[in-house]
Amino acid sequence: MKTLKNDRYLRALMREPVDMTPVWMMRQAGRYLPEYKAIRAQAGDFMSLCKNAELACEVTLQPLRRYALDAAILFSDILTVPDAMGLGLYFEQGEGPRFANPITCKADVLRLPIPDPEQELGYVMNAVRTIRHNLNGEVPLIGFSGSPWTLATYMVEGGSTKVFTKIKQLMYTDPDTLHLLLDTLAKSVTLYLNGQIRAGAQSVMIFDTWGGVLTGSAYREFSLDYMQNIIGGLQRESEGRRVPITLFTKGGGQWLEDLAQTGCDALGLDWSTDIHAARCRVGGKVALQGNMDPSVLYAAPARIEREVAAILAGFGQGTGHVCNLGHGIHQDVPPEHAGVFVDAVHRLSRPYHQ
Amino acid sequence: MKTLKNDRYLRALMREPVDMTPVWMMRQAGRYLPEYKAIRAQAGDFMSLCKNAELACEVTLQPLRRYALDAAILFSDILTVPDAMGLGLYFEQGEGPRFANPITCKADVLRLPIPDPEQELGYVMNAVRTIRHNLNGEVPLIGFSGSPWTLATYMVEGGSTKVFTKIKQLMYTDPDTLHLLLDTLAKSVTLYLNGQIRAGAQSVMIFDTWGGVLTGSAYREFSLDYMQNIIGGLQRESEGRRVPITLFTKGGGQWLEDLAQTGCDALGLDWSTDIHAARCRVGGKVALQGNMDPSVLYAAPARIEREVAAILAGFGQGTGHVCNLGHGIHQDVPPEHAGVFVDAVHRLSRPYHQ
Repeated sequence: MKTLKNDRYLRALMREPVDMTPVWMMRQAGRYLPEYKAIRAQAGDFMSLCKNAELACEVTLQPLRRYALDAAILFSDILTVPDAMGLGLYFEQGEGPRFANPITCKADVLRLPIPDPEQELGYVMNAVRTIRHNLNGEVPLIGFSGSPWTLATYMVEGGSTKVFTKIKQLMYTDPDTLHLLLDTLAKSVTLYLNGQIRAGAQSVMIFDTWGGVLTGSAYREFSLDYMQNIIGGLQRESEGRRVPITLFTKGGGQWLEDLAQTGCDALGLDWSTDIHAARCRVGGKVALQGNMDPSVLYAAPARIEREVAAILAGFGQGTGHVCNLGHGIHQDVPPEHAGVFVDAVHRLSRPYHQ
Repeated sequence: MKTLKNDRYLRALMREPVDMTPVWMMRQAGRYLPEYKAIRAQAGDFMSLCKNAELACEVTLQPLRRYALDAAILFSDILTVPDAMGLGLYFEQGEGPRFANPITCKADVLRLPIPDPEQELGYVMNAVRTIRHNLNGEVPLIGFSGSPWTLATYMVEGGSTKVFTKIKQLMYTDPDTLHLLLDTLAKSVTLYLNGQIRAGAQSVMIFDTWGGVLTGSAYREFSLDYMQNIIGGLQRESEGRRVPITLFTKGGGQWLEDLAQTGCDALGLDWSTDIHAARCRVGGKVALQGNMDPSVLYAAPARIEREVAAILAGFGQGTGHVCNLGHGIHQDVPPEHAGVFVDAVHRLSRPYHQ
């Protein structure tokens, strides 16, 4: 095992002292970078890029060459697991992800296999290993998966949706079938994330993109419980070090107390939640990640720095904060503005760690 | 002035005793009703229906014939004000609302007129008067408008959006122009709602559909402050009776305390907010409206009744609750299920008012 040269990100997640607040950006490897677009064009479609370990590694490392980021994140998609189950993931121009074989009935659910991470998802494990090797101990590597509820919404809707008609029809008319699906997904995600940890991921994150469309009680029953099951099944130590787990429910600001009790180490916050209030509510239990509105990166540098300063002041003195955007970086922000954000976090956070 | 035969809705908004919890449904006049679709086909496009006082009255009254609703709501659109400003509202099949002339620069904002409710928006005032006449004092009539922030998002984006790129670019790069736009909209909405009240609306509601995409501080600066300005300018009594004002920010569950301090009488809740917690937070100050997930209406009657029972129990004993959906009714729910909802509210709420 190589010594990690910069472990600020892992330390902050464990609420251990750091010299300055670590920072990374959701979707930091992405279309706002011209060098990403070049590799993407070379790979062809999005999934071909995910499935090519060398190219996936290359785009993972690209933002680290530009910015003083404190973590790398595996370049992949949240929908790899349902794809490995045979649903046939593809991306339609301007339409987002689609499944060729969506779930339409209980029989479809009963037929779903639990993918073997080293077989059907072997390309992801290869990418993790390749990235870890090429990172050369500079910063830790984050692995990730979609949450069972979020995966289920895409699998039942057949793709992106604004109204969640089919998944909610299923939830309110045949909850048993949905529970069966979620259980299969939770088992699959547990194996998948443990595979990533074995392959070299030093921290994992579960993205619950659509938990926020539920009522509080439905959220607990159909999303949170399954994330908690996953956490209970994850390998928590690797290479002699704790593997911190971060949960992120977009739109879940009202349920932070529940999220903090799952056994995770940190919570991701979207920008609608005040980070000061969040720390008061759950900061004694978990670290917090977030939460600048990605749209602030449209603004001039001084405005970006002002927003960073407000978030750092909101979190306040001491460790337990990983600075990030509240969601993925937009593809049309100037790359220099991302640099302003990263540098501002480091520069302005030092006084909070003295 | 005719005596109002059923004033349960107005009394609950003023937190005065009622015999049972009043109920209405957002978008209760809509495509889930075959009789609505027939009138809509007769009128042609959506705006032609809004602009025809007799037909708008007819669709407003349709759900009252089917269900024991405690309020009628003006049939109209939230985007009438920007349309009256000259932006050219139209509806593209499956695409939602669009503007022919969106706001692209400060000069566009400076050119915007403040519409006269009895001129450019005279068709809405006529609809209000026609509906009031035909309601014959059965239940109160609710008037409404979009919030300045919500109207501004459509005006700047040129229509519906999932990512809010243009409006957020404007907000973070040229906030002064956005404030100018919001100020013009607040003045226009104040005149518009006062016009509706003079024409016969007995309560008004402000729909802030997109306030929830903002950070807390941006929400206060760009949405809440302008709603508060409107409230300060509204006629609060009409026909010898208080005209209650309801604010509804979708996704605003984290800011209820701020919303409750605007001088409004009631807050609409979407389904992500727990109504028991909401009452604890603000129930001493305002009434609450909501908040069943509209998707529950897909479920079988027993399941709908169970959800109604949970919401009523969540709110608890006493007045100050108007039962409703947390958002508009979906167009593909069986009309009988809406009846199950309405009847369940009345039947199951009696014990809470003894």
